[in-house]
Amino acid sequence: MQMPRPDPLILSRRAQIVAALERAAPGAVIHDPAETRVYECDALSAYSCPPLAVVLPRTTEEVSAILRVCHAEGVPVVPRGAGTSLAGGSMPTEDAVVVGIARLNRVLEISTEDRLIRVQPGRTNLSVTQAVDGLGFFYAPDPSSQLACAIGGNIGMNSGGAHCLKYGVTTNNLLGVTMVMMDGTVVELGGPMGEANGLDLLGVVCGSEGQLGILTEATLRILPKPAGARPVLIGFDSSEVAGACVADIIRAGVLPVAIEFMDRPCIRATEEFAHPGYPDCEALLIVEVEGTPREIDEQLALIRDIADRHSPLEFRESGSAEESARIWLGRKSAFGAMGQMGDYMCLDGTIPVSALPKVLGEIARMSAQTGMPVANVFHAGDGNMHPLIIFDANKPGDLERCEALGADILRLCVEVGGCLTGEHGVGIEKRDLMSAQFGPADMEAQMRVKDAFDPRWLLNPAKVFPLDLSESRREGRPNAA
Amino acid sequence: MQMPRPDPLILSRRAQIVAALERAAPGAVIHDPAETRVYECDALSAYSCPPLAVVLPRTTEEVSAILRVCHAEGVPVVPRGAGTSLAGGSMPTEDAVVVGIARLNRVLEISTEDRLIRVQPGRTNLSVTQAVDGLGFFYAPDPSSQLACAIGGNIGMNSGGAHCLKYGVTTNNLLGVTMVMMDGTVVELGGPMGEANGLDLLGVVCGSEGQLGILTEATLRILPKPAGARPVLIGFDSSEVAGACVADIIRAGVLPVAIEFMDRPCIRATEEFAHPGYPDCEALLIVEVEGTPREIDEQLALIRDIADRHSPLEFRESGSAEESARIWLGRKSAFGAMGQMGDYMCLDGTIPVSALPKVLGEIARMSAQTGMPVANVFHAGDGNMHPLIIFDANKPGDLERCEALGADILRLCVEVGGCLTGEHGVGIEKRDLMSAQFGPADMEAQMRVKDAFDPRWLLNPAKVFPLDLSESRREGRPNAA
Repeated sequence: MQMPRPDPLILSRRAQIVAALERAAPGAVIHDPAETRVYECDALSAYSCPPLAVVLPRTTEEVSAILRVCHAEGVPVVPRGAGTSLAGGSMPTEDAVVVGIARLNRVLEISTEDRLIRVQPGRTNLSVTQAVDGLGFFYAPDPSSQLACAIGGNIGMNSGGAHCLKYGVTTNNLLGVTMVMMDGTVVELGGPMGEANGLDLLGVVCGSEGQLGILTEATLRILPKPAGARPVLIGFDSSEVAGACVADIIRAGVLPVAIEFMDRPCIRATEEFAHPGYPDCEALLIVEVEGTPREIDEQLALIRDIADRHSPLEFRESGSAEESARIWLGRKSAFGAMGQMGDYMCLDGTIPVSALPKVLGEIARMSAQTGMPVANVFHAGDGNMHPLIIFDANKPGDLERCEALGADILRLCVEVGGCLTGEHGVGIEKRDLMSAQFGPADMEAQMRVKDAFDPRWLLNPAKVFPLDLSESRREGRPNAA
Repeated sequence: MQMPRPDPLILSRRAQIVAALERAAPGAVIHDPAETRVYECDALSAYSCPPLAVVLPRTTEEVSAILRVCHAEGVPVVPRGAGTSLAGGSMPTEDAVVVGIARLNRVLEISTEDRLIRVQPGRTNLSVTQAVDGLGFFYAPDPSSQLACAIGGNIGMNSGGAHCLKYGVTTNNLLGVTMVMMDGTVVELGGPMGEANGLDLLGVVCGSEGQLGILTEATLRILPKPAGARPVLIGFDSSEVAGACVADIIRAGVLPVAIEFMDRPCIRATEEFAHPGYPDCEALLIVEVEGTPREIDEQLALIRDIADRHSPLEFRESGSAEESARIWLGRKSAFGAMGQMGDYMCLDGTIPVSALPKVLGEIARMSAQTGMPVANVFHAGDGNMHPLIIFDANKPGDLERCEALGADILRLCVEVGGCLTGEHGVGIEKRDLMSAQFGPADMEAQMRVKDAFDPRWLLNPAKVFPLDLSESRREGRPNAA
């Protein structure tokens, strides 16, 4: 096979951009295709594309200088945290420069008095908690990828985690950011108090998936560590009944730290994979509460009362740290276990808790109808579902049927009053489903705000908004500075 | 005195606009100057201006039709909740139509399962809690004006209240809104889940002081009522020490529902006015905790330990509902008591809790230097200060000296990392102080978002942004549809 010969004009433009980037951030530019390969995709690895170049800046000033170059040249920019997006949130396009924040990873300030930590956004989620652990504090949002994922990515996706039922998601724990806009302007949004004056741009930046700017600092709320925590495991003979029990716990006003849900396919897979000793049942809940031993006893007594009304097959309360670890073992290895079973697609819809029984029933019906197995393991307390559709990548047409079923499930989430994503973001994965959620006026309002921050639509192209809308928006803008 | 004769051209344009409004919302238009008088000002009554007309729509469709008329005619619109703004947030201009939401006051939906209530925004804050009280729930934000203020105004100002230390302010308790944009477009932002897809416009609408649209529905988070609550009163011989005690309580991670602060001038005034039996001291704190009796005992034991380290003059724990009411009596009558003492200006700055001792000391110094008495009564737990400057409106120059001192105190709040307003908003009162908080790039970013929602700058004119900036922005826009 003969490789197409590169167009010398494109080559010279490429070289010119790389040279300008090198002047903006000396020694921080990667453009050898062998080295940029690692930046071709994120955790949605089915899709990939080599970028024009990658820059790994070390300061806010470098980020600003890089964006000024790209703005002047009309070059799209893809911000990248740790590349753990499951929705293609940091996938490049071939004409784009990836700006990675991995080197911006320092702790800048800790104040237990004002309960905050100020960090650079390339720092990993877990290492933020580790930085304040010795002082008796923690940072609440804890996505499954917390060992690897960057705070900047967490802010971009408004990440949650097992603790978010009690402590809220990223937007509830974010006080301020320093952000560089596409034209290189540096703005400060929020502050130590989360500032209330004027328009609250911090709220719209959180969860904006790199559409509005690149973060170079973040001030985060830290919380005192609870006195203790204890999980219980509750087994049921039906997913709908387990869902109804979750709804009752929430309605009663108990506020566990976590309510996690697993159904039979998932229980079986984890049992074979990690042997946590789970009961043989249709569905189980792991409910964890926090506080002093007395507070824990009081909350668990109430949860037991509620569970009893739903005739559980088992109610197993942890009596030791070892038992707690065993209860969590299966849940924590669920994704690994499912990976052993074959190919799967992980969805990320969110629904009102009251709709849990209905939606679980509907998913089971759709799974039976299409013949595609679906396993459920998710944060039930706040209605953030992660249905896993099992398919065979080697079977012709199976991926397409899986994607079609996934889209139907997400449309169902929207129909019952929920939304397309809880914590993974829209990315490239769900951009064309956005119109299932938003009418033309709602979408136009969002796109006008994008216009306000990035009038030429250069930041993180081809994501979040339906492709035809974002492309026509971008084409309508002059390409020269 | 001879009245100037009205210009017939202006009169005819006025009549034409009123006729168009009457077609848009039949029977809902007020234009007789005798009747529009009540809409000339809000609770910042030092400033007033009669509007062109007032409309009191009954439906989203009427709001949309009214805004289409105003948009087509280039007429500014002033949204108005209950008119309780202390910052002139709903003060009209003479060329503006006031759109009052008082008739939009129905409860549309209550779901204890999904912990939400959906209301029209003219409903008062207190009546939202009353609507769910019998079900064992409440709506957390509780501004002092809760008997009168409208939910729409609360959202516009991102209101707080005594409970916000534990439960957050309006933005933390708001799930979704229906909003009409200036061109009449109706958008849905957020939803039962507070939806996470795409750009989170709900966050930027909350606290936007009527700059972005007019709300016609709001979905609010409701919470289960706590088992019980108990206040303690702690007296100190110095304001700085009381401030240090607050900082220590927050640092220790206890989360009381409320930490309220009063200094000697305020204690004296309330003692004379309402006789709550407060101790004779320099400063006192009222700290209230919630939970079961055991949880309350545990939290209060910890608070007592912390207070003891600051050698309090008195630590008075409530032993009954009557004693609780007595402890709260003085705090709740503080503003009334200050009103008896003479004229006062109530500030609304917010600072990091760690800066409380320093700022209280500085305010005392500035008060002594200028000879203007300053009393402090405020939500100390979240650093939301309400210094009251006492002045004599009949003494020439006293109001101006009071305003100058107020501006200096707010600049001090910004200097220590805080901001110009906690819950009253910027309005007309603090628009020219915005540049003390924000640099040109930060302000420009906010104004571009305003552009995106209201390109012709017709909504709630002359507020929030420094007057020269907003005027020049408005003048740059074409006045025809």
